[in-house]
Amino acid sequence: MANQLTFNVAVVGATGAVGKQMIRILEERNFPIKQLKLLASGRSAGKTVTFKGQEIVLEEATPESFAGIDFALFSAGGGVSKELAHHAVNHGAVVIDNTSAFRMDPNVPLVVPEVNMDAALAHNGIIANPNCSTIQMVATLKPLYDRYGIDRIIVSTYQAVSGAGQSAINELQAQSREVLDGKEPTCEVLPVGKLPVHHQIAFNAIPQIDVFTDNGFTYEEMKMINETKKIFGDEQVLVSATCVRIPVVYGHSESVYVELKEDYDLAEVKSLLENAPGIVLVDVPEEQKYPLATDATGKLDVFVGRVRRDLHHPRGLHMWIVSDNLLKGAAWNSVQIAEELIKARA
Amino acid sequence: MANQLTFNVAVVGATGAVGKQMIRILEERNFPIKQLKLLASGRSAGKTVTFKGQEIVLEEATPESFAGIDFALFSAGGGVSKELAHHAVNHGAVVIDNTSAFRMDPNVPLVVPEVNMDAALAHNGIIANPNCSTIQMVATLKPLYDRYGIDRIIVSTYQAVSGAGQSAINELQAQSREVLDGKEPTCEVLPVGKLPVHHQIAFNAIPQIDVFTDNGFTYEEMKMINETKKIFGDEQVLVSATCVRIPVVYGHSESVYVELKEDYDLAEVKSLLENAPGIVLVDVPEEQKYPLATDATGKLDVFVGRVRRDLHHPRGLHMWIVSDNLLKGAAWNSVQIAEELIKARA
Repeated sequence: MANQLTFNVAVVGATGAVGKQMIRILEERNFPIKQLKLLASGRSAGKTVTFKGQEIVLEEATPESFAGIDFALFSAGGGVSKELAHHAVNHGAVVIDNTSAFRMDPNVPLVVPEVNMDAALAHNGIIANPNCSTIQMVATLKPLYDRYGIDRIIVSTYQAVSGAGQSAINELQAQSREVLDGKEPTCEVLPVGKLPVHHQIAFNAIPQIDVFTDNGFTYEEMKMINETKKIFGDEQVLVSATCVRIPVVYGHSESVYVELKEDYDLAEVKSLLENAPGIVLVDVPEEQKYPLATDATGKLDVFVGRVRRDLHHPRGLHMWIVSDNLLKGAAWNSVQIAEELIKARA
Repeated sequence: MANQLTFNVAVVGATGAVGKQMIRILEERNFPIKQLKLLASGRSAGKTVTFKGQEIVLEEATPESFAGIDFALFSAGGGVSKELAHHAVNHGAVVIDNTSAFRMDPNVPLVVPEVNMDAALAHNGIIANPNCSTIQMVATLKPLYDRYGIDRIIVSTYQAVSGAGQSAINELQAQSREVLDGKEPTCEVLPVGKLPVHHQIAFNAIPQIDVFTDNGFTYEEMKMINETKKIFGDEQVLVSATCVRIPVVYGHSESVYVELKEDYDLAEVKSLLENAPGIVLVDVPEEQKYPLATDATGKLDVFVGRVRRDLHHPRGLHMWIVSDNLLKGAAWNSVQIAEELIKARA
């Protein structure tokens, strides 16, 4: 691709927590944009957003919005993706969808560039962006998967409220003030806005993200379980997950236990992680250095630390994985897929 | 024991976060007290505390403080216990020590009444109270250990700041306000006061509780690993732990994966938990009922929910265990041991 080549890009859901980050990253990365189209609900149409010093007027997303678009980045909820993604594809756009609408569709690749960019190259118009908590885990485990193979993963998450959108961020902040002031906290959003019961998130830990399935796991947990298999292209990678919302604004943390298929050398594991693309090893316990959500906020990388040998299982390994859920977990992974597609076409 | 029998009780560390709860529980439980002696550092001596409507003057803890004392409840740090516990024993008191001073001492039983009260009855003057995060886990797993046996446990904790004392509670509250007001947070206490580096706990998750050992695990994690074996009296119970501090004031939550020795029936597991002493099953996912730290605050019980079959391992089981770390995790477990000793003598 010649350097002067530029692309028409649409962001669908431009006013949402992830959409805003997509716009910011397109600017920061100096993505080769010819025209940026910002699409939202009719409610937001007419508002303006600044991009590279220019005011862009938000338009209502309709089937016709995608004429001439090269990349359509969707993050406006599964319903909007199901309604509009195929229109974008029919107009010749590549859709990179950040919702769960198409993730498990066998015709749609589910992509983390560090893991399975080859799948993205074989797309049929739509590429799905995995769930935030899955992305940071599989990106970190990829070099270990390649070197040793993985038998099973047991993960417990410590997830930020921003994964549930701007209203959840507002709720955590408002509740925190209420509790600090000795008032009764107002609970209207978390754990799941549309469900009847809402729990306090300020100064609490809620072991529910998304709704429950019949097997006692939540959809969020099943996403980690099923998406990991699809991204590795390996049904034999067994995942068990417990997904928990904690009072953090940005940055998902994960306590990950993994059983490799082969014996490993701990120094080699750390070296593999240190040299893996997109991964930053932060692991100096004696200096109290390990990944923290507050340090990961605003960064594109995935941070891993507390890497240590299980005391009992010879192939068992523990680690602590942290990343900004709105960036590598969502907006950046989407933009990164687009960047890699452009590179591959070059 | 005749009902009129009463006892002289000393609380060592009466001004601390746990000491205050010990006094509250002794009152609430109507513990058969003849005289209550409240001991603290010289700094606090002379202050008064109200117990059952009476003002009690705090005294400085010295070797002579324990003359005539029947039960001495220690919670003033390991150094104070090491210095004074033997004096209390020499004066004829039974010491119930909430610090880590004697937990792994082979001559000192480490006791959770629901699990190994028999060990307490064989004490040599000192009985150790386990680490808070261990207590709620082993109390919950006891009925499953008895029925099926336990091969291994993998636990990730979500621990409240009150486990690090009143200064950590103050720090979380002050930092939360600072962050909400857009100010730089002041970090002076967590994760470990005496270490050089302090991290923000407000709106964050810190994967360090206590200092690190050479194997990459923290002492807090090693406590869960070693204490579990000692309490069950079974070196074959393998535990792996990742201990994490989160911005919660009261109540430790734990994501626990356990592999039983025998195949199990999930309904039977739930029934065993439901009927176990000190355990409350809160497990109705379809009504969004599961244990929460905010609900457990101030309660003596251990709450368990999200009990579900692992999707891959036939003997694997997941659960979410929550309890007030200052109560069952500390003050109540100590008072409960004293109550059970009295019952056993009756």
